[in-house]
Amino acid sequence: MEVTGTGWRRRHVAVIGAARASAGECEAAAQVGRRIAEAGAVLVCGGLGGVMEAACRGAREAGGTTVGILPGGDRSEANDYVDVAIATGIGEARNAVVVATADAVVAVGGEYGTLSEIALALKAGTPVIGFDSWELRRRGEPVVGVRPAGSPDEAAALALEHGRPPA
Amino acid sequence: MEVTGTGWRRRHVAVIGAARASAGECEAAAQVGRRIAEAGAVLVCGGLGGVMEAACRGAREAGGTTVGILPGGDRSEANDYVDVAIATGIGEARNAVVVATADAVVAVGGEYGTLSEIALALKAGTPVIGFDSWELRRRGEPVVGVRPAGSPDEAAALALEHGRPPA
Amino acid sequence: MEVTGTGWRRRHVAVIGAARASAGECEAAAQVGRRIAEAGAVLVCGGLGGVMEAACRGAREAGGTTVGILPGGDRSEANDYVDVAIATGIGEARNAVVVATADAVVAVGGEYGTLSEIALALKAGTPVIGFDSWELRRRGEPVVGVRPAGSPDEAAALALEHGRPPA
Amino acid sequence: MEVTGTGWRRRHVAVIGAARASAGECEAAAQVGRRIAEAGAVLVCGGLGGVMEAACRGAREAGGTTVGILPGGDRSEANDYVDVAIATGIGEARNAVVVATADAVVAVGGEYGTLSEIALALKAGTPVIGFDSWELRRRGEPVVGVRPAGSPDEAAALALEHGRPPA
Repeated sequence: MEVTGTGWRRRHVAVIGAARASAGECEAAAQVGRRIAEAGAVLVCGGLGGVMEAACRGAREAGGTTVGILPGGDRSEANDYVDVAIATGIGEARNAVVVATADAVVAVGGEYGTLSEIALALKAGTPVIGFDSWELRRRGEPVVGVRPAGSPDEAAALALEHGRPPA
Repeated sequence: MEVTGTGWRRRHVAVIGAARASAGECEAAAQVGRRIAEAGAVLVCGGLGGVMEAACRGAREAGGTTVGILPGGDRSEANDYVDVAIATGIGEARNAVVVATADAVVAVGGEYGTLSEIALALKAGTPVIGFDSWELRRRGEPVVGVRPAGSPDEAAALALEHGRPPA
Repeated sequence: MEVTGTGWRRRHVAVIGAARASAGECEAAAQVGRRIAEAGAVLVCGGLGGVMEAACRGAREAGGTTVGILPGGDRSEANDYVDVAIATGIGEARNAVVVATADAVVAVGGEYGTLSEIALALKAGTPVIGFDSWELRRRGEPVVGVRPAGSPDEAAALALEHGRPPA
Repeated sequence: MEVTGTGWRRRHVAVIGAARASAGECEAAAQVGRRIAEAGAVLVCGGLGGVMEAACRGAREAGGTTVGILPGGDRSEANDYVDVAIATGIGEARNAVVVATADAVVAVGGEYGTLSEIALALKAGTPVIGFDSWELRRRGEPVVGVRPAGSPDEAAALALEHGRPPA
């Protein structure tokens, strides 16, 4: 897929999830990646394995562009399906960079790293779609923050619908 | 309180919570700060207002040392009860620095920024104590990560008991 | 230009320089960008104006891929010739990310921000080529760190020759 | 030494230099640290060995407060004379935090890491005093940025004179 002249103005959707993920989570992430790429959006992720790798693979299969924002200082950490790898060298603080770079976030499953990204996105007002992911409660009450999706296709559709690229 | 020769080897407890907090949350945070300082531990926080300011105030009242790790690049963001202010200039990514600097974390109430710190601490294996704070669920099941405390005193006690300074 | 399946394994060259640059510096940066793109390498930069924009423009004219690693938290800071924009939100600390992501660095002119990137690259052992840029001395003696180039073409050639992508 | 109630409003001076330093450089750094502490200012540094450790030792001998801003994510990286250690976990990007936290910077000798901090300080308009440190030239001309000091005492005096804490 061509990275066109106004590349950064295209929609950017982050797919977040754990490096150690189940087969089902990876399948779901790949499908989200495919749908994002088919819509002409850029797939952003943390660049490592598991859900991140599956999402990149799906996007790549659909001819999309994939960006991996890595915790370490060496591009070779990136999975094989990353087109553009950013070696941040800032460790877990890179989660804030993944979120800031995306117009919307789709969480597939996820461990605590994913939860930190969900929280940073919600703080920034960036839409978060969850598929089989974290649910948030405070003082015994559910907090409406993550929009739940019933399928990977719906997750991608909601992200594309609610995310807005910068003007 | 004296900052002794081996200052950084003392226990460090982070108190996290929102800049916009209720009177009750601030009262609780001040009490946690007092207890931390009375135990000779260093209070770490994000350096701004609300829960952060109250925790610093409590620690200061008990003669303790307070560290504020700020998002912006100017020390004058710090609240009046911060002894040592760090102007990180790295924005929300500074949440990862607050967590990495602490041996244990006490969350008092909290919005999404607090949730991101809870998540980063749990990822790092740092004990997290919650008072009237976030509860986590995934796939309909509660996730045991944050240890709930029934009072500010218990929150401080649990943090001091379970946190361990680096060797 | 296609971003191929093993995109991040391609050579990455950073072009660094000031946002306020002379016409001559911009012309030189554009030529360096062209040569980098013609060689099939990815152009990395800080994503803003001046030398950064000119380098992206040159690379774009030659059909290349351009990556802009921004200080702020909004992709719209990027210049019009950036294909992939990373909104780091970490301020000046993003200079370390620009350097870590590149296999070699070409400095064209440059102010103090550029000097910080030169220094970080030399610390990491990343080759630095200078065109009309900083010269370093310590205790009255020149320090051989930046390789001077006599022309933009030579600068690009040296960067491509001496930079090595991660295995 | 007491960390007083308005701790962060005190003057903060960073002493920067290499972890591998000569005996003479360490002696100089210790003297700068002593003078800073005697003036009631807080000593800020990168928290590691060599010049950083010597500066902390000198400040400690004079009853001062020392802050070490570490690249790694574990406080135990800190040298023995650090009172307050910040475990940033952001690698070389922490150099930007050292600089942002200080009102003035004294460079003693120094390798490339030090040069990056000098550059970031000059970019921010923070006064930089050099003792036996880097000299900067561009296009064959010296650049007046680092103020040279003829002795450690003069370096500390210049830093205290020209640095200004935030209002």
